[in-house]
This record gives sequence, C-alpha cells and structure tokens, in this order.
Amino acid sequence: MAGILLKNIELNGSQSDILIEGNSISDVAPAGKITVKDADVETVDCTGKAAVPGFVNMHTHAGMSMMRGVGEDIAFHEWLDRIWKVEEKLDEDLVYQSTRLACLEMIKTGTTTFNDHYWYMPMAYKAATEMGLRSVLAYVICDRNDPEESERQKIQCQQMYEVSRAWGDTATFCIAIHAIYSVREEMMVWATRFARERGLKIHIHVSETRKEIEDCKAQHGGMSPVEYLDSLGILGPDVVAAHTLWLSEKDVEILGKRGVNCVHNVNSNLKLASGYRFLYNELRDAGANICLGTDGCASSNNLDMLETMKTSAMIQKAWRDDPTAMPLPEIMSMATANAGKALGLNIGRIEKGALADILIVDTENYSFLSPASFEANLIYSAHSDSIDSVICNGRFVMRGRVVPGEQQILADARKALVKLL
Amino acid sequence: MAGILLKNIELNGSQSDILIEGNSISDVAPAGKITVKDADVETVDCTGKAAVPGFVNMHTHAGMSMMRGVGEDIAFHEWLDRIWKVEEKLDEDLVYQSTRLACLEMIKTGTTTFNDHYWYMPMAYKAATEMGLRSVLAYVICDRNDPEESERQKIQCQQMYEVSRAWGDTATFCIAIHAIYSVREEMMVWATRFARERGLKIHIHVSETRKEIEDCKAQHGGMSPVEYLDSLGILGPDVVAAHTLWLSEKDVEILGKRGVNCVHNVNSNLKLASGYRFLYNELRDAGANICLGTDGCASSNNLDMLETMKTSAMIQKAWRDDPTAMPLPEIMSMATANAGKALGLNIGRIEKGALADILIVDTENYSFLSPASFEANLIYSAHSDSIDSVICNGRFVMRGRVVPGEQQILADARKALVKLL
Repeated sequence: MAGILLKNIELNGSQSDILIEGNSISDVAPAGKITVKDADVETVDCTGKAAVPGFVNMHTHAGMSMMRGVGEDIAFHEWLDRIWKVEEKLDEDLVYQSTRLACLEMIKTGTTTFNDHYWYMPMAYKAATEMGLRSVLAYVICDRNDPEESERQKIQCQQMYEVSRAWGDTATFCIAIHAIYSVREEMMVWATRFARERGLKIHIHVSETRKEIEDCKAQHGGMSPVEYLDSLGILGPDVVAAHTLWLSEKDVEILGKRGVNCVHNVNSNLKLASGYRFLYNELRDAGANICLGTDGCASSNNLDMLETMKTSAMIQKAWRDDPTAMPLPEIMSMATANAGKALGLNIGRIEKGALADILIVDTENYSFLSPASFEANLIYSAHSDSIDSVICNGRFVMRGRVVPGEQQILADARKALVKLL
Repeated sequence: MAGILLKNIELNGSQSDILIEGNSISDVAPAGKITVKDADVETVDCTGKAAVPGFVNMHTHAGMSMMRGVGEDIAFHEWLDRIWKVEEKLDEDLVYQSTRLACLEMIKTGTTTFNDHYWYMPMAYKAATEMGLRSVLAYVICDRNDPEESERQKIQCQQMYEVSRAWGDTATFCIAIHAIYSVREEMMVWATRFARERGLKIHIHVSETRKEIEDCKAQHGGMSPVEYLDSLGILGPDVVAAHTLWLSEKDVEILGKRGVNCVHNVNSNLKLASGYRFLYNELRDAGANICLGTDGCASSNNLDMLETMKTSAMIQKAWRDDPTAMPLPEIMSMATANAGKALGLNIGRIEKGALADILIVDTENYSFLSPASFEANLIYSAHSDSIDSVICNGRFVMRGRVVPGEQQILADARKALVKLL
C-alpha cells in the first residue's frame, strides 16, 4: 500500500517514527524502530522537525475568503447587512474560487479539517477535495422568516443530502441552522429531525451577540437562545454551537448537560466587538466539549488557527485575571482532539489507527530556540510559517511550504474578485 | 553616493518610486518619475510589493530572547522572581547572543528600531550594530533599594555614557529607570537629572500591575505611581513610560499634560494577566503620545510587532464594546510615526529627508487577495512572513526573507542556551 514513513520526528517530546499507510497512521514507535521495505512507502527524514495533529477549524465560512475587508471597524449587525448585500452577487464560481483560496490559506496555516457553513455546497466540496483537505460541509438553512423559502430549502436540503451520499471519504455532509434570528422555528425543528434521522451533525450560530439574547428574550417569553433551542429539543452532543459567548449560568448548565460542542471564535468576537468573556472554565467544567474556530475571514480576518489558539489563551488569562487559565495542553486539545470528538471523526490525535492528518513543524528557527516546551514555542512564539509540511488523509498537501498550483489559485481568485466588486 | 532605487512600489495606495541615498530617503515620486544614472545606485523592481515604514518596538528587553518559556502560565511577580534568578547566570556572551537572536527575529518580523532596556549594554550595542538595526539602548538603573548599588550604578552609568559618545549613527544612549518599586527615590531623581543635562531619553516601567499601584499608594501617602513620579518632576516629553495600564483619571490627565510617551505592551499584559483595559482613547485625547512594544519575549513570547498591532486593536475594540476603536491608521502610526516622535529620531515615515528604514511587503499572496486596504490586509490578515525585505539606515538587512548569517546566529545561540540552563 502507498505510504509515508516519517523518521526521527519529535512527537510529544520524544524522537519517533510515524508510519502512514493509505489514509491512516499504521504505526508510531521510538525513532529507529520502524523499517519498511515496501517500495511504495516514501521515507522522509524529519530531523529537526516535530509532529502535531492537523488543526481543525470548527467554525468557518470558507466561501467568504474574498470578502475580508468588506466591512472594517464596524459592528456585527451593520457588518452582517453589508455581507448580505455582497452575497447577492454570489454565484457558483465565486464560491468555488473563494473556497479554493481558503483551502490554500488553511493548508499554509496548518488546518487539515474545516467545519464549513456556507452556500453552494457542491462548489465547496469540489474545492476542498481538489485541494486535498478534509471537510464537513453544511447545507445551510436560512429562510429569513419566509415560509416559501423554507419549503424551497427543505427540497434542496434533501437533494443535497442525496448528492452527498456519493462523496468520497474526506467530506462529510451536515446540516446548518443559521441562527434563531434567521430561521423559522418550524424550520429549525424540521432541520434537526432531518439531521437526527440520518445521523448528521447540526451546526448553528448561538448567542453570539447581546442583541441576539435581548431579541430572543423579548420574542420567546424571557428565554435565552440556549433555553429556547433546548425547549425545542435541538441541543445535544451532535450539535456544534458556534460562539456561545453571552451565556447565563443556566445556559452553561444546559450546554454542559446536553454535551454540546461549543466553538470559540475569538478574533471574530473581538474584531466585531461582540464580546470577549467566553466562559471557557465554566463550559468545560459543566461538560461541554470546547473547540476553536476562526469564523469566516470576512470578520476575523484570516483562517489562522495558531493565531486563534494564542489569542484565545491570552484573552482568557487576561479577563479572568488568572495567568494559569486555558493552559497549553488544553489549547492544543481544543484545536485538535476535541474537534475530532465533536465531528465524530478519527482525527486530532497522532496514534495508531487514527486518520493521517499531520503537521510537520520546523523547530530549527528562532521561535523554538528557548527553554520552553515545543507546545509553548509553537503556540505562543511561532507563526504558521514554521509549519513546513502538511499531510491530510495520508497525502502531502504541502511540502516545504509549497502547495501545488498556488500561483494558479491566486490568479483565478484575482479574476473572480473583480467580478465580486 | 551608494543608494537604492525602489521602483514601482505601492506607497499609501499609489505606485511610487523611492530613492534612498546614503542612510536617507532622498526622493519619493510617482512610479516612473525617478531615474538615476549613478552606477552606485541599485535599482530594485518592486512590482507586486508595498512599502511601509520599518516598525519601532518601543519597549523590549532584547537580551531576554533566550528566556522565553522560563515561566509559562504564571503571574507577574512570580514570573519576575523567576527571571531575576535566571538572570544571575547572565554574562556578556549570553546578552550578546540573545540580542543577536532578538535582532534576527526583529528583522524577520519588520522591526527596524528597538528601544531596549537591559543589562550589558555594550553587548547589545555590538549585536544591534552588527545586525544593522537602529537601537536606543538604555543604561538600566535598578538598585533594588541598596544605596551601595546606587553609587556603583552612578559610576557605571557615567562610564557607559562616555563610551556611547563614540557610537555610530544607528545607536542612541538613554537612561532606564527600572521601576518605582526597584529604584530608590534619590536614584530616580539623580538618573532623571543625569538624562536631562545630556538630552537623553528616560525609559521606565510605569503602572504595569495593580500590585504596583497598591504598594505605591501604601508607601507614598496615597499617591499613584504616576502622581508619585510627577511629584518628583520625572515625567515629561522625554519620558518613555512602558505599560501605563492601571491609570486613574488623574493619571491620564498628568500623562497627557506632560506629553509622556506611553507604550502599550498588549501581549505581555495579557499573558501575565496584568490587565487589558489600556486607556488608549483617554490617553490619546489627553495629549499623550502612544506607541507599541512587545516587551521582552520572556513574557510575550515573541518580538512580532504585527501581532502586537493586531492584538492591540482587537482587545481595544472588544473591551470598549466599540468596533471603531483604535482604527487602522492609528495602529499604523503607533508602530511607526509616533515612535519616531517619542525617540526624537527622523524615522517612522517614508518621505523625503527621513532616515531610510523601510519594509518591502509582498502583496501577491492570499492575505492580500481581498477588497480591503493594504493596511487592513497587512495588520488584520497577514503575518510577518509577508515582509519580503527590510531596509534599515539605507542598507538591506533582509532580502527575500534571507538574513545574512542566520544559521550561524542560531548555532551560536543554541550553544549559549545550554550555558543558561
């Protein structure tokens, strides 16, 4: 079977060998312990490099990558109006080009799986699979209170689900419910039932802004968005709730009890001034599974998970007035193993049997010349340009920072951008 | 005269030519308007690139670059105790190697001038000048309440000042007063007088932690550190005050009235959980001159000004609940022109007559493929690896991301690190 043997690579502080066969990790052993004679297995000497699981961006809108800068230094609801205006010009090609550009950025910054929430899903599928990334692609339910639109989306959702059944092993179909303020109640319930009957994950924006909380309370008899969603039976361990930023004690308890996967999108929340007091400790202790996302780069303004990891930890320490908050091992899990758990995919760990999504990090530059641990240097000191190579599903998607076809992707995106503006 | 002609480079949104002769910018004109026949002038085609002034890191401890990770996820005063323990092992070679390593990192991340605050200044001078960076190097007064140490430092300060008079044009001597909690009052007054008699800048840590405020009030009849320093006549436009994080309304008024240069060190403040509510709007409106620093990378954990710029803006928007706070042009000025003003150096602007400290930024990568402005893309989207080349004092210190001697610097630093540990 075709494979890759990574020799002499630092893994969790030890020199190791990692054998990849097909799309999975078939062996992990101390350096020098694995020898392979199969001519189909390429041996790569990784001296001076370290392995980490590929990052998982648990909430993004890849198709928005050409919309960064559409609104700078403005507030969430003003920003959303502007985005919805630009999106009127969207077409298949724009989503394809934007998602391809987003995949390029994700590869260069070490993301191997992205949990996407956007329009024209077949185009996102095409871009992600061409680029070799693992994706979870949502059919987005967003009827904006129009019953006719609901019916149209129900039909399209079913069609897309059927289409997705022919997808390869790197893409997973899921259902997105945009948000409680943009989807009719009956439609949210329909979408949840549709997902649960088919074992699909549900991806939803929850409690992102104070306005969302206030509006919800006014419309739903004083219930918060979390209470309201729970009253409809929507919350569960199959739900990925993006943002969960404005939460009451009761909300935290519900999200914990239901085992919801909460995604912190720190840069988007900061930049749109949505808020910064993400209740990390409380949610973790209540039993929620916490992951990280960049949000779409129209709001954040990039797809860089390392930046998200550092900033999340920095803010958490600062606002809690506690320098021990969100320690390094937990940040790393949020970007990797916790996401694997949330998506029900065997990713986020480098161990025998796991899918082979691996970052090869160059540790011979100034960022790593310190007494700190590899994790501290990677997250607090380095940037994504220390990521030398990226393996996704057992295949190199970047080697020595070269992504095949990069110049063509940029050239095509430049042409598409002209059309958007 | 030896020179460099940067052709077809984007500057403030227009295609331009920039002529550098000697260490200064001798002409800036629309693209195609400058032609030079002098064989000593090298013409560089900068199509697809943009020019920004070199960043100025207004508060750092370059000699600490090998101490990053000495204390992770701990609080300021515990961290400081640990640092002071490690520093007992410091010697000239360690400071030389650490500063050289810091200069390498600063060049790669676009800093052309650093305002340093550390020990063994002649070694910092040697490292900075060898690496071709502009530096403001402080003799650090820090007697830790020991009158004998004060006398020793007075003599050494005078000696160092004499030594500095033979320095070349890229290094400036200044006086650092460590902080009110580590320097005797009489010594602070002596140092201030010493500086003012010679026209030297004064660099001091001010109001970094709540503990500093509380201790000061207890010891000095209820005065805050700012009030206390002002009562001693220390504050003025020649003072660079690092941190200024915990300020009363009266403190803001004093800092403004005295025209103090306040340096925000966001990552250090966040990581040590010192605080995050930097009073940017209030200080600016009161008349203070606000700059940015990374602090030493033992606390921050890197020397990356672009990261500092983005994080400063993000936090400011979030805690003020105002997405328009700290807009892009102001962030850029804080990292460039404001610093030139603070240091009394003709840097931080790309214009005729200014010193030639210029970053050449590659705008043909994914970070810049958007409808946003160049500044938005550079600060919010890109990382320092988009900085292709760096000119300091009219000379290339990095070209195409290659810094001469990089591998030797890393090898030497690795040896020195073993000694430190």
